[in-house]
Amino acid sequence: MNFHDRVQQIIAKKNSLLCVGLDTVIEKVPRAIRTSKNPLLDFNKAIIEATADYAAAFKVNVAFYEAHGVAGWQALFDTFACLPDDVIKIADAKRGDIGNTAAMYSKAVFDLLHADCVTVNPYMGFDSAAPFLTDETKGVFFLCLTSNPGSRDFQYFSNGKQCLYERVATMVNAWNTRHNCGLVVGATHPDELTAVRKMSPELPFLIPGIGTQGGDLAIAVRNGIDAKGSLALFNSSRAIIYASQNSDFAQAAQKTAQATMLQLNQARLSI
Amino acid sequence: MNFHDRVQQIIAKKNSLLCVGLDTVIEKVPRAIRTSKNPLLDFNKAIIEATADYAAAFKVNVAFYEAHGVAGWQALFDTFACLPDDVIKIADAKRGDIGNTAAMYSKAVFDLLHADCVTVNPYMGFDSAAPFLTDETKGVFFLCLTSNPGSRDFQYFSNGKQCLYERVATMVNAWNTRHNCGLVVGATHPDELTAVRKMSPELPFLIPGIGTQGGDLAIAVRNGIDAKGSLALFNSSRAIIYASQNSDFAQAAQKTAQATMLQLNQARLSI
Repeated sequence: MNFHDRVQQIIAKKNSLLCVGLDTVIEKVPRAIRTSKNPLLDFNKAIIEATADYAAAFKVNVAFYEAHGVAGWQALFDTFACLPDDVIKIADAKRGDIGNTAAMYSKAVFDLLHADCVTVNPYMGFDSAAPFLTDETKGVFFLCLTSNPGSRDFQYFSNGKQCLYERVATMVNAWNTRHNCGLVVGATHPDELTAVRKMSPELPFLIPGIGTQGGDLAIAVRNGIDAKGSLALFNSSRAIIYASQNSDFAQAAQKTAQATMLQLNQARLSI
Repeated sequence: MNFHDRVQQIIAKKNSLLCVGLDTVIEKVPRAIRTSKNPLLDFNKAIIEATADYAAAFKVNVAFYEAHGVAGWQALFDTFACLPDDVIKIADAKRGDIGNTAAMYSKAVFDLLHADCVTVNPYMGFDSAAPFLTDETKGVFFLCLTSNPGSRDFQYFSNGKQCLYERVATMVNAWNTRHNCGLVVGATHPDELTAVRKMSPELPFLIPGIGTQGGDLAIAVRNGIDAKGSLALFNSSRAIIYASQNSDFAQAAQKTAQATMLQLNQARLSI
């Protein structure tokens, strides 16, 4: 099954558009876990178990593990191994390099981590993307219009007809011959989200920015889903995983994940 | 000492513009080393020892280590630990993410690997770059115009006055308040290299593409160095480290590194 169909299938099966982001920081983990041998892994395990029923996807932010060196990479591998089969497993790595190097990154995320998809920075163009796209079952979410303030610096650069982010969307649609391309579009840009969805009716979207970053959830859903009310994964990281920093953190994460899933579903049903 | 001054100082001290790229692939390592316990590290150690006299910088391509998972990250750390003090240590990671995530990547490359500088993808704008720029002694080479064919896909996107890569150069010059910004400009674009150098008289350049990728060395030197014949590091990876795949690989790498250093110096003296 190609990546596009799998995203659609999982969203339908789980009846959820929620992606839980595992941006795990030791300092924010409850004290009891912080002193364990594998605090990142123990925390993630508890969060995954508590929230998996409500999540269509988990996004693991590679940076947060790299920052712990070799032990962090071990925790990254072990975290991926804990993810259940009926979710989309996203390696949020934002990689991108010339062909022979991109092939190495592809090996790391697909063959070692067994991620279903990876975030990729499009700046270096098609030959930097191609090594991630050879297997139709494995997907790429290309950065298109990101949720951060710096998205204004280059992504709106315009040739008078198109902004760079629209040019990226146009190209990624053309690269989608194996039905395994997607786009990252931030919820903090609701109007642009509408425009990119219109240009890209067949692409899965990964939409950050609805939690701590402040994007409006209902508007992001309305503007980001496809014609069938699917094909969009809305990421929330900190608002869910740090819903409580006490010993009830897993239950608090579960409640917040469930509430967010319901909010997302309410928003798509009210259209 | 800020990063700009350190690049200048090392180039003068070593009388070299050469950067040796450690894109180490197990399959290309001589058979005798391939069967050792730490083939990547053993190979790198031998190459570093053989070429350090001729190199102003070493560029370690993180992807090639990530592709080996936890053991690869160990080899990456150990390789950085083997680099001598009188070279610029470049983590070629091409990272870039929103602020709190970029801070994690910065921690990984500067606090753990002890790299002097890192390659960063500018697509996500200033707040994705800032966490790498807080310490004036640590530098960033921002991707500007890359050496690969895909550089044509987005980097030449133009507003009629500037192409995107020129816009990146303009912004990076503005971000250079701590004298620790640099640019990546491929030797495969010699005319553009002249233009970007003209716009950026004060920025160190990291220039890939003179080896296996086919950029003309003498032209790249003429167009890439600053007014004093300095501030440019010319990377060669495969042409040096795989100069021989037999047991004489270290001597062959040494010969090629020395020859390349001399060619680079000849080119800058003949201007």
